[in-house]
Amino acid sequence: MQKSHEAEHLDGNHGISRLRLRIAYGAMLIAAAVLFFVLDTWGKELVAPATEPAAEPGAAVPASKADALVHLLIALAVVLIAGRLLGRLFYYLGQPPVMGEVVAGILLGPSLLGEVWPAAAAFILPSSLAPNLAVVSQLGVILYMFLVGLELNLGVLRRQAHAAVVIAHTSIVVPFLLGVALALLLYPRFAGHAVAFTPFALFVGIALSITAFPVLARILTDRQMQRTPLGILALGCAAIGDVTAWCLLAFVVGVAQAKLGDALVTLALAAAYIALMFLVVRPIAFRFLAHFEKPPLPRGLTALIFAALLLSALATEAIGIHALFGAFLLGAIIPHDSVLARTFLSNLEDLVTVLLLPAFFAFTGMRTHIGLVSGMEQWLICGLIIVAATVGKVGGTLFSARLGGLGWRNATALGLLMNTRGLMELIVLNIGLDLNVISPPLFAMMVLMAVATTMATAPLLQLLHPKNAEP
Amino acid sequence: MQKSHEAEHLDGNHGISRLRLRIAYGAMLIAAAVLFFVLDTWGKELVAPATEPAAEPGAAVPASKADALVHLLIALAVVLIAGRLLGRLFYYLGQPPVMGEVVAGILLGPSLLGEVWPAAAAFILPSSLAPNLAVVSQLGVILYMFLVGLELNLGVLRRQAHAAVVIAHTSIVVPFLLGVALALLLYPRFAGHAVAFTPFALFVGIALSITAFPVLARILTDRQMQRTPLGILALGCAAIGDVTAWCLLAFVVGVAQAKLGDALVTLALAAAYIALMFLVVRPIAFRFLAHFEKPPLPRGLTALIFAALLLSALATEAIGIHALFGAFLLGAIIPHDSVLARTFLSNLEDLVTVLLLPAFFAFTGMRTHIGLVSGMEQWLICGLIIVAATVGKVGGTLFSARLGGLGWRNATALGLLMNTRGLMELIVLNIGLDLNVISPPLFAMMVLMAVATTMATAPLLQLLHPKNAEP
Repeated sequence: MQKSHEAEHLDGNHGISRLRLRIAYGAMLIAAAVLFFVLDTWGKELVAPATEPAAEPGAAVPASKADALVHLLIALAVVLIAGRLLGRLFYYLGQPPVMGEVVAGILLGPSLLGEVWPAAAAFILPSSLAPNLAVVSQLGVILYMFLVGLELNLGVLRRQAHAAVVIAHTSIVVPFLLGVALALLLYPRFAGHAVAFTPFALFVGIALSITAFPVLARILTDRQMQRTPLGILALGCAAIGDVTAWCLLAFVVGVAQAKLGDALVTLALAAAYIALMFLVVRPIAFRFLAHFEKPPLPRGLTALIFAALLLSALATEAIGIHALFGAFLLGAIIPHDSVLARTFLSNLEDLVTVLLLPAFFAFTGMRTHIGLVSGMEQWLICGLIIVAATVGKVGGTLFSARLGGLGWRNATALGLLMNTRGLMELIVLNIGLDLNVISPPLFAMMVLMAVATTMATAPLLQLLHPKNAEP
Repeated sequence: MQKSHEAEHLDGNHGISRLRLRIAYGAMLIAAAVLFFVLDTWGKELVAPATEPAAEPGAAVPASKADALVHLLIALAVVLIAGRLLGRLFYYLGQPPVMGEVVAGILLGPSLLGEVWPAAAAFILPSSLAPNLAVVSQLGVILYMFLVGLELNLGVLRRQAHAAVVIAHTSIVVPFLLGVALALLLYPRFAGHAVAFTPFALFVGIALSITAFPVLARILTDRQMQRTPLGILALGCAAIGDVTAWCLLAFVVGVAQAKLGDALVTLALAAAYIALMFLVVRPIAFRFLAHFEKPPLPRGLTALIFAALLLSALATEAIGIHALFGAFLLGAIIPHDSVLARTFLSNLEDLVTVLLLPAFFAFTGMRTHIGLVSGMEQWLICGLIIVAATVGKVGGTLFSARLGGLGWRNATALGLLMNTRGLMELIVLNIGLDLNVISPPLFAMMVLMAVATTMATAPLLQLLHPKNAEP
């Protein structure tokens, strides 16, 4: 009864509660903006570390072609198999299997295997492989973001209570501001080569405020919570959070890549592209796709969608807000329950998650060098990042969920769920490293933060909402 | 009545016909071996042209990472769209659509666009893109060969009449020997850098004796001939031809890559690997897969198959007979009608043929420079290659099909069908260019031969077996 009451409360039309929410929401956004500008002004006085551009593995000389293929196959096979085994182990430990794959990639990279058995690491993930691995990994992640977009049910989002929007945005704003504050500490130490304070602070803020929709959905399904009011609310919040965070990231990438004057042009173009996709392409796609009522899809339609995917990725990359955003956006505007979306999801999911994402895990593992985090001070900072991310996410969610009328236990559970960062965080971090916004040591710390916060979710949730039956 | 009589004749137990076939088959193989050694001894006295190693586009310096992604997306999008449009046009002209994609790749490369509008060619297919395009293309072709293997119905092959085996092998032996003879003419002019006569001659022989099973199957389906006795016989011959030609190619690659003494080791290992796959892995797979009666497949099984695919490709590459053979072999030993095979075929086919193969078409197009074929003499030689390929394939098939009891009209039709080389030939040619067995001008001539023979099939077949109804 309590649960359904809460759900009703969240969705209901209690005038006072709704007004209170709106005022709180508006106040929060204004306060956040003011706070950001104070922190940003402060931070602009800081001096970045005098670093060389990071020696990317991607800069290495490529091997000969036959060798390149052999090493790519070896890397994919090893990471796929190790990732599956570790994923299985993680599953038995109550952890999302995808984290097993992430950890497998890290262990095979310079962090562990490179330290204890350099010859094996050089055989499995030689630095000459990086450019090729990057290509496969990028293609895989583009397809993956497209699938994440396809899974997104915009229809449900629109029916979501205002409470979900407020909770989602608070759960972004609070860790975001904590991240910007943390950037004051991090910028003199770990900023990338020649990056200004503002894009750096924005990026750290984003990195702390990511929620991984797919991993969260997986955790809920594993605990059979996806149909409970709490589960539905969590999915809604995470989906809104995803869209918001990716829009913010697009903004940050735009700012980081553009010269000062160009940033506005980039943002205007991005807004125009998003508007075009939602207001023009989406209604057309909606009508057009209604003609296809059952599978199989004609081959020509499949080709059209892949062409649109490539073009949308290219458009956002050309605008300056990363190809991944275009892939995600195209997925998001395709009706979630169309035959097309269902066919693409069921056909592509296995190939992308099983064969292509290991390239991403291997690539991320190659770039994550935990050995770069050295000394008590740096480990304290790493701990601080994890604490800030968790406190910001759980605290922000808890606060607004309580305000929205949720009980303490459910509000805390929601906060823990939103603290899941998973794969999505790693994708964001790789973009930051690619753009030279963050340095390799900070990248390693952030990867640890992503792994730690994601892996904390299931055990903590278990305390609040014990799983009924083990599978 | 005539057709069913013929089919009966082919499958029947007419003692004389069968004995005659066996004797003819044995005599053919012996004669072919003798002929090969005569030609080979003769050819070994020839001197290869004094060429530098071909300046491969693959040797170019890779672009920066973000640029690399943009150019990869541009190339894929352009070739996908141009290929689809040209494929549609080809379809209306009664040609296999896949040839439209092949031709699109060639037109966008140095052969046409590079000549008439170099800036556009450098934008769409810059040489810095080659290494990345090669990686995606190789992954795509590995998956494609796996699918071709999955489509192969070994059960049907075993039930095929001896006639099909004899026809298939004759249709390989005759063009193969013509190719070896032609190699005497080609070796002093177009051999790759530092290649001996024997691997060169073997390779030219193979290149002339390829039949493209998938394109042939597509042509038969388009003309609704796939269930006729002629269609079934053609599919059987093409499938046997595929297996045989790929085994021969594995042999040639082994010879070309190995030192003289190592060649035997390579061949012994290859034979051992094939035996292992057929005698050990296949029965296990057969039993194991019988447990899965209906879709969806568990994710773990999908991962297992992808891991097996990577490992099988690696094994054959390590043995020295190209990764593609391992992929094909794994597909071939998986029961054709298992849920696994059907699920993989239906899930992967679109992604592989629509999104990944354009990378192969683009890559092949980049490497095909028809401008390298210059002067009357070279064009005459190019014509000679086309004539030898056609005469060998059609003649060899016609001869043995007549011997097997087929009427003139059907025997000719069968010969024309077997003359389809399509994509499979391009895959083989790329291997030859990768191994430096053939030179870029010969590569261009062979590509023209593949396109010409494949595109000749449908119109000539139309004369013999007019299509009943246009779709």
